[in-house]
Amino acid sequence: MKVLVLNSGSSSIKYQLFDMRDESVLAGGSIEQIGEPGSHLSHSLRTGQIEMAKTVRTLPVPDHRQGFQLIASVLRETGALTDTGELKGIGHRVVHGGEQFKEPTRVTPEVLAAIRSLIPLAPLHNPANLLGMEVAMESAPAVPQVAVFDTAFHQTIPPHAYRYAIPKRLYEAHQVRRYGFHGTSHRYVAKKAAEFLHKPLETLNLISLHLGNGASAAAIQQGKCIDTSMGLTPLEGLIMGTRCGDLDPAIIFYLARETQLSCEEIESILNKESGLKGICGVNDMRSVGELAAGGDPEARLAIAMYCYRIKKYIGAYHAVLGGLDGLIFTGGIGEHADFIRAGCCEGLDHLGLAMNNGKNLGHQEGCSALESGTGRVKILVIPTNEELEIAEQTVACLEAD
Amino acid sequence: MKVLVLNSGSSSIKYQLFDMRDESVLAGGSIEQIGEPGSHLSHSLRTGQIEMAKTVRTLPVPDHRQGFQLIASVLRETGALTDTGELKGIGHRVVHGGEQFKEPTRVTPEVLAAIRSLIPLAPLHNPANLLGMEVAMESAPAVPQVAVFDTAFHQTIPPHAYRYAIPKRLYEAHQVRRYGFHGTSHRYVAKKAAEFLHKPLETLNLISLHLGNGASAAAIQQGKCIDTSMGLTPLEGLIMGTRCGDLDPAIIFYLARETQLSCEEIESILNKESGLKGICGVNDMRSVGELAAGGDPEARLAIAMYCYRIKKYIGAYHAVLGGLDGLIFTGGIGEHADFIRAGCCEGLDHLGLAMNNGKNLGHQEGCSALESGTGRVKILVIPTNEELEIAEQTVACLEAD
Repeated sequence: MKVLVLNSGSSSIKYQLFDMRDESVLAGGSIEQIGEPGSHLSHSLRTGQIEMAKTVRTLPVPDHRQGFQLIASVLRETGALTDTGELKGIGHRVVHGGEQFKEPTRVTPEVLAAIRSLIPLAPLHNPANLLGMEVAMESAPAVPQVAVFDTAFHQTIPPHAYRYAIPKRLYEAHQVRRYGFHGTSHRYVAKKAAEFLHKPLETLNLISLHLGNGASAAAIQQGKCIDTSMGLTPLEGLIMGTRCGDLDPAIIFYLARETQLSCEEIESILNKESGLKGICGVNDMRSVGELAAGGDPEARLAIAMYCYRIKKYIGAYHAVLGGLDGLIFTGGIGEHADFIRAGCCEGLDHLGLAMNNGKNLGHQEGCSALESGTGRVKILVIPTNEELEIAEQTVACLEAD
Repeated sequence: MKVLVLNSGSSSIKYQLFDMRDESVLAGGSIEQIGEPGSHLSHSLRTGQIEMAKTVRTLPVPDHRQGFQLIASVLRETGALTDTGELKGIGHRVVHGGEQFKEPTRVTPEVLAAIRSLIPLAPLHNPANLLGMEVAMESAPAVPQVAVFDTAFHQTIPPHAYRYAIPKRLYEAHQVRRYGFHGTSHRYVAKKAAEFLHKPLETLNLISLHLGNGASAAAIQQGKCIDTSMGLTPLEGLIMGTRCGDLDPAIIFYLARETQLSCEEIESILNKESGLKGICGVNDMRSVGELAAGGDPEARLAIAMYCYRIKKYIGAYHAVLGGLDGLIFTGGIGEHADFIRAGCCEGLDHLGLAMNNGKNLGHQEGCSALESGTGRVKILVIPTNEELEIAEQTVACLEAD
């Protein structure tokens, strides 16, 4: 049983083909710079139990339609998929599902229209996601398509946590509320953490930290998300590579008065020139870590701020969860930056968080438990796998139909 | 030894005259609507051990200069003060001291110029505070004047907590950082809490919640503030009467795109139509409480959101303080709204916070401890007294000179 997962961006399509009998990846890759001169395909094909053979082809890909057909043909040529008819379904990552979509949903014209109506909430992402779905439906009309929403996992957040303290009419007329993102990742690592701990997810209180170029925290109470750090948009919350995260909102008005910057320029600064980059000049945590190790005071400040912000979220979620069983690190930084994991847990012994430094430094790949013998709370590294989660939810959605 | 405390607003002057031998209030009052047709003076004079006689006079007060002279003459007429020469000093509340003013400071022309340079950071408050100081210096040139800053107590906050994750140049060129406000109140109640507990302040970790029409939380580690919820401006942090507190900053850009509102209109909405008022239509917590008691779902949501936001701050500060000895409620709401105090502590037993419901409901006036026998953390109501704190700091500043 094969499932194709598509993540369609404005000028890219990422894909992975799964054999869902054993959840193995048969092939995967991406087309980048669609519609631009340098457009190219990177394709990886499973050649053995774990080996993958990678090929890169530079070729003109004028639009998403031809991009999808290129993916279908390279899957066919390499033998990964004889025909799209072989697919149980295609699962699509969709960034914003608003309040309508609380579950993975079979794509129909009505669903496409509903996702289109949410474009104001995700003007950069939903149009590209829609394009991917439309192209896939046209090119493989017989294959069921499922939309899996980044916001869906957070739809269990109660009103006292998702509403902002702004006029009610802005919620009712303009849907201004906390939605949260990275939901597919938070859900996946929470499930995996429960498996790893050999406990039912419904018995655990977890905080998951998805720390990549974007970053968010989620408070998960007995399997249900009750709060998350991203809000109406992915700008709120933790410090990110180039995004500011939490900010006195009046700073925007102050800057508009005190500088010559327009509202649009301020928005761009907060999204693209802030975060780690704003504090110390570089946005990649590996570079920040190297600079800090070399004594750079701004890089050290960036790391201190990054970890301090996370500690405040850990404390806040620990409080409202009513107790904590496990803290999960995932995403590129969460899985690979031991100094960030250490910094986030430092001084939190009174919450039951005690890191074993040797285990933290020794972690390489896969799932690990890093807490010391005295730590009441499990400290876990769980590699995320959003594509596999989308594939699993695609199957579950189609089987429930 | 008499000290006069002045709090000069854009169209008002509030004043209190203290006898610092026993810190008693000799007289106090306010002039409101200066420069407007309805300008009037309310004056209270101590007539016995606790009795105060109050008089209200409606009379033209065209400007702050005449306002100050009116205060001097009413103090003279009523016998509270024979002459301004009797004053040890005049203490002025100043909202914003920026990074320069970490302590109460004797007012000189240089200090006035420095406070003037901070006007962009507090465009509504610092000009009125300056006017009050100038008028008082002109009218009572022989009396030493001391500026006491709302931001000063927070100047011990370390960079990882006061910096925002925005480009460094915005901090360096435009002073964008967390300053915090209500510092005089947080300092006062922390000192009083230590006295009440018979412990040195330097041995205690405290969270103080100043809950009035404005509201803020402060994390106080061994007497020093290490974090606070208000930021560059008093808009950030807790939910307030009409201010939104924490908000995804991108909501401003979203509203600018999706509505016909200008940036200035959005700023006004977030300051004057948000908070409790935005959620349920009324901004006075007594009215919100009455509506909620009558079953109004929006008022109930407002209270749930208000308390939930505070719980997250309690959790965050509990985490970064490394442990908690006492939680302090102060301000009009903190001192008088038992249902808010209960809501803020509910479900936080795992932090050592356990409220005795009888003590909470029974609290009337003065300082009280509300924790139950099982609570590890003291839960205190400490009435704030910013005027007395300003008077004490005025004396301390002049005696240190």
